[in-house]
Amino acid sequence: MARWQPDAPGRLAAAALDLFEEHGYESTTVIEIAERAGLTKSTFFRYFPDKREVLFDKGTVTGLLVEGIASAPPTAEPLDAMADALDALGRTFFTADRREFSGRRQAVLNANTELREREALKRIDLTASMIEALNRRGVPALTARVAAQLGALVWEIAYDQWIDTDNREGFGPLARDALAEVRAAGALR
Amino acid sequence: MARWQPDAPGRLAAAALDLFEEHGYESTTVIEIAERAGLTKSTFFRYFPDKREVLFDKGTVTGLLVEGIASAPPTAEPLDAMADALDALGRTFFTADRREFSGRRQAVLNANTELREREALKRIDLTASMIEALNRRGVPALTARVAAQLGALVWEIAYDQWIDTDNREGFGPLARDALAEVRAAGALR
Repeated sequence: MARWQPDAPGRLAAAALDLFEEHGYESTTVIEIAERAGLTKSTFFRYFPDKREVLFDKGTVTGLLVEGIASAPPTAEPLDAMADALDALGRTFFTADRREFSGRRQAVLNANTELREREALKRIDLTASMIEALNRRGVPALTARVAAQLGALVWEIAYDQWIDTDNREGFGPLARDALAEVRAAGALR
Repeated sequence: MARWQPDAPGRLAAAALDLFEEHGYESTTVIEIAERAGLTKSTFFRYFPDKREVLFDKGTVTGLLVEGIASAPPTAEPLDAMADALDALGRTFFTADRREFSGRRQAVLNANTELREREALKRIDLTASMIEALNRRGVPALTARVAAQLGALVWEIAYDQWIDTDNREGFGPLARDALAEVRAAGALR
């Protein structure tokens, strides 16, 4: 067994992204990813069940969002709790040093149906986690579902803007702006 | 080449569903599905690119929804256009005779990650088609995205209720009720 390596999952993800860009997702093997990262195949499988999973973080984003929703002031409306959570995510995870990697990662995901499928299911699971977190705040079931759907849309808008190569704004402020716009647009009859 | 068969895709889907229930999705082969349907493997591949696709209809639902949105009265608000579209879908596709199959199909999808992933991506693509259809009605980009997200939620709620074995109501009326509830719950601050 390989000895423990600091941030092995991060190195594996970076190596995978390089290789996917160079040779395509399909043509890259787990062994090549592990070698590029200076690790072994068995180390890869200690962190990821398969090649498809290497560009997805294992629950960190979900955890941060759920925590952010839970720790919003008790009187906060559902969408305000969501805004707090997105803000926390911008401060602790979607930080400036992760922006370039995130943009490259998204381009690789968008170009491959297998990866798009995995991402689509992750988003559904993330939305489900947000709904549960809102329910635990006492938000009624249907209101929580509506708020989580709108929160997911806000996320999507802010994320696309954030990874844009011309952007220099932080994820948190972009999410705040997107939420305000979604709110205004959501005044539908 | 096998001679043309009436509703071959429908027979293949029904055969596949039987086999997935009997032996599981993983253990069933395309050849077995074709044989059970009284067709050949090459006929299967004329209709579906792979086994994963056999339980998904090829754009009928998307087409009906897009058509329904397009043909709503010009003055209809986005969510009303969406309601018309869901109603049309209930009249022409999610009809009573399709309910039992739809419920069994959903149970098989829910039990398998590969199928859940495919379904998740189909839903994203469906939402994108609804957004485009709303844009073509002159609905502003962000309003269309909000309306399509809420429409997708209405669909999900109505569909889950419709396939419930105890349900005897039609998809259209269930969608109308769900929309009214989502609207009320969506009065978020």
